[in-house]
Amino acid sequence: MKVIQTVKEMQAWSMSQHKKGYKTGFVPTMGYFHPGHLSLMKSSIKRTDKTVVSIFVNPTQFGVNEDFSKYPRNYERDLELAKEAGVDMVFLPAVDEIYPEGYDTYVVTDKLSQVLEGKTRPTHFRGVCTIVLKLLNIVMPDILFMGQKDIQQCVVLSRMIQDLHLKVKMVIQPTIREKDGLAMSSRNTYLSLEERKAALVLSQALEYAKNQVEKGTSNTAFIVNGMKKLINNESLADLDYIAVVNRYSLLPVKKLEGSFIICLAVYIGKTRLIDNYLFDVG
Amino acid sequence: MKVIQTVKEMQAWSMSQHKKGYKTGFVPTMGYFHPGHLSLMKSSIKRTDKTVVSIFVNPTQFGVNEDFSKYPRNYERDLELAKEAGVDMVFLPAVDEIYPEGYDTYVVTDKLSQVLEGKTRPTHFRGVCTIVLKLLNIVMPDILFMGQKDIQQCVVLSRMIQDLHLKVKMVIQPTIREKDGLAMSSRNTYLSLEERKAALVLSQALEYAKNQVEKGTSNTAFIVNGMKKLINNESLADLDYIAVVNRYSLLPVKKLEGSFIICLAVYIGKTRLIDNYLFDVG
Repeated sequence: MKVIQTVKEMQAWSMSQHKKGYKTGFVPTMGYFHPGHLSLMKSSIKRTDKTVVSIFVNPTQFGVNEDFSKYPRNYERDLELAKEAGVDMVFLPAVDEIYPEGYDTYVVTDKLSQVLEGKTRPTHFRGVCTIVLKLLNIVMPDILFMGQKDIQQCVVLSRMIQDLHLKVKMVIQPTIREKDGLAMSSRNTYLSLEERKAALVLSQALEYAKNQVEKGTSNTAFIVNGMKKLINNESLADLDYIAVVNRYSLLPVKKLEGSFIICLAVYIGKTRLIDNYLFDVG
Repeated sequence: MKVIQTVKEMQAWSMSQHKKGYKTGFVPTMGYFHPGHLSLMKSSIKRTDKTVVSIFVNPTQFGVNEDFSKYPRNYERDLELAKEAGVDMVFLPAVDEIYPEGYDTYVVTDKLSQVLEGKTRPTHFRGVCTIVLKLLNIVMPDILFMGQKDIQQCVVLSRMIQDLHLKVKMVIQPTIREKDGLAMSSRNTYLSLEERKAALVLSQALEYAKNQVEKGTSNTAFIVNGMKKLINNESLADLDYIAVVNRYSLLPVKKLEGSFIICLAVYIGKTRLIDNYLFDVG
């Protein structure tokens, strides 16, 4: 496994892979790998000739009062895990390699970035779109691998790729969970033992919703109220939002049919966690 | 000369040119060609193997009360002129081919878009960056040819290309002028005979500034005041701004040294005209 730290070298390597006729897969990450990241890497290794992983804690996707500086980092461990997984190339740039002095360009989606996570984190998706477009132009992959846990990120980036006429394909991999159902996230490391237990309300609320949908319940408000009750019963949990939205527009749906998402964000103590289920009905 | 109207066909053609090893040049336009456009095309034909011209009056770069609907169009004449000039390919998409339903993605430069033209036209450069990035991803040129008349556009796009790690090179061609000095612009067709005469104050003010700089005058305020006087003496002219700015940051310069721009925007009747000179001193 190779490690590259500069844009110039990374672009040269990417070009050379294309010239050799290799199909490349790309997994952009902020590091601190958990089985969710590793599952994306394995999927890429299976489906492409060369797999590139980037590790970059991207400052522009954190709000002013968010956890950029304390976001967990362990590059040494990450590099070992990537190597074990069979990754070919790790792109590990410094912040000023990506955002040099005078940097001024941002990519945004307009409507998709204003809802759900975007309400609580108004500049988050601007940062996400900007860094991912930059990385796509640096790594030039054939397939981009993203995790369903950040479903709005997947929807936003998929729209960006379509709108900007990029040729990369996106594969969305199912969320990897702990045995008890908690969605894997680097932010889970913030949780105390007690909070770790309380964090189960997210997946439990989604399981409740899934059972209701499978039963044929079509009343969105009924399902959301049931989920709210479960979360309000957990004293360490503080609900940010629950939403039932269209898979592509992220606008609220009233009838539970077609492709839709039930998603939620909950503060467990000071840690904000998100989770979602994707449904295809009818 | 071929004409293509869909993104898919254009991308396929562009890819095929690259596979054949051709170097391609690209001139993005809003049509209604004048000698300024033709000079960009000729420059591309001279320096590359295949020249692509796009004609697209881009709605997203016009403000709500600007002249999108009345912007002059004459596609038949444009196609004839491009053919005569020796252009290989014209990309002529419809608006909903470029901005289909659900379109949501925009590219912006932050600081560079807020000054000069951006003050009077707050969403203009968002539209310019967005359409040019889209066109670059569709046409995939090796060299992009732009006219110096829209100098802020050149500076903004050059920054965007650098920030997004695009491999295209930009060539900025000198402004083409009428014999009496008026910078060529499709908007000149809005002018009455009387206004056409009055419009000369823009280039006259710039000539005054140039003479001052060549004389060694280093007092920016003195030069700007001289330019203002000239414009205020013309009863049909209404000054929007005069600025002396750094070539890259577009921030005001006090000392006239290095690479700087003197630029201005003036209303002649209801028509807003711009012009600029680029200086390299010292």
